[in-house]
Amino acid sequence: MLGRVNHIAIAVPDLKAASASYRDTLGAVVSEPQSLPEHGVTVVFVELPNTKVELLQPLGEASPIAAFLEKNPSGGMHHICYEVDDILAARDQLTASGARVLGNGEPKIGAHGKPVLFLHPKDFFGTLIELEQV
Amino acid sequence: MLGRVNHIAIAVPDLKAASASYRDTLGAVVSEPQSLPEHGVTVVFVELPNTKVELLQPLGEASPIAAFLEKNPSGGMHHICYEVDDILAARDQLTASGARVLGNGEPKIGAHGKPVLFLHPKDFFGTLIELEQV
Repeated sequence: MLGRVNHIAIAVPDLKAASASYRDTLGAVVSEPQSLPEHGVTVVFVELPNTKVELLQPLGEASPIAAFLEKNPSGGMHHICYEVDDILAARDQLTASGARVLGNGEPKIGAHGKPVLFLHPKDFFGTLIELEQV
Repeated sequence: MLGRVNHIAIAVPDLKAASASYRDTLGAVVSEPQSLPEHGVTVVFVELPNTKVELLQPLGEASPIAAFLEKNPSGGMHHICYEVDDILAARDQLTASGARVLGNGEPKIGAHGKPVLFLHPKDFFGTLIELEQV
């Protein structure tokens, strides 16, 4: 079921500083920040040769990463996104095996304009997993 | 400086259960467990098309992931490993820019038999970064 690692998401309290750190200190190619108000985040893409890291900063009220940053004020690794061919088939297979899908169980359109689902971190050893249909 | 994401490491309290979950529930290809007593971990490799996830369970006394699991008993994302061409050049550039290398600053031979260094998570927004010379 799991395909490529689409991205690793890192929540940060200061996107400008984090972006400068990945660009200047770590020598990576980073994008301009993109505000995604419908997802409650501003994102910078760190382009690596085989995948990407997404630096996320909360945007607006009720950001999905606000609680994480309250618990981890310096920031930290937030989730891993894997690509899947068929998100509904993946969901049905996962729920049949007892794994919990967050929200109402229906895929939403994610930050890349593609259907995504999140799996409950308690069912996967503390790791929040995003599935994205590509 | 940063090359490919070599792996994403996830610390887990129960490697057998985590391995079964990635294999049976998530449908990934997972390796047999490998005990690395000199690194204080037992590891299972989850092979993805573009990188790998390493599931780590503490092994022996003074495992480097024991404190993390005490703080995160269910497990969680532990570090990201990036490939670099020249680890000494990378280290010198990083320390010159003020980033802290863990330990005595000298590369050690990592779990893949190659020189590695870890960077202080406080200098990188809560993310523990491993550099591996490939």
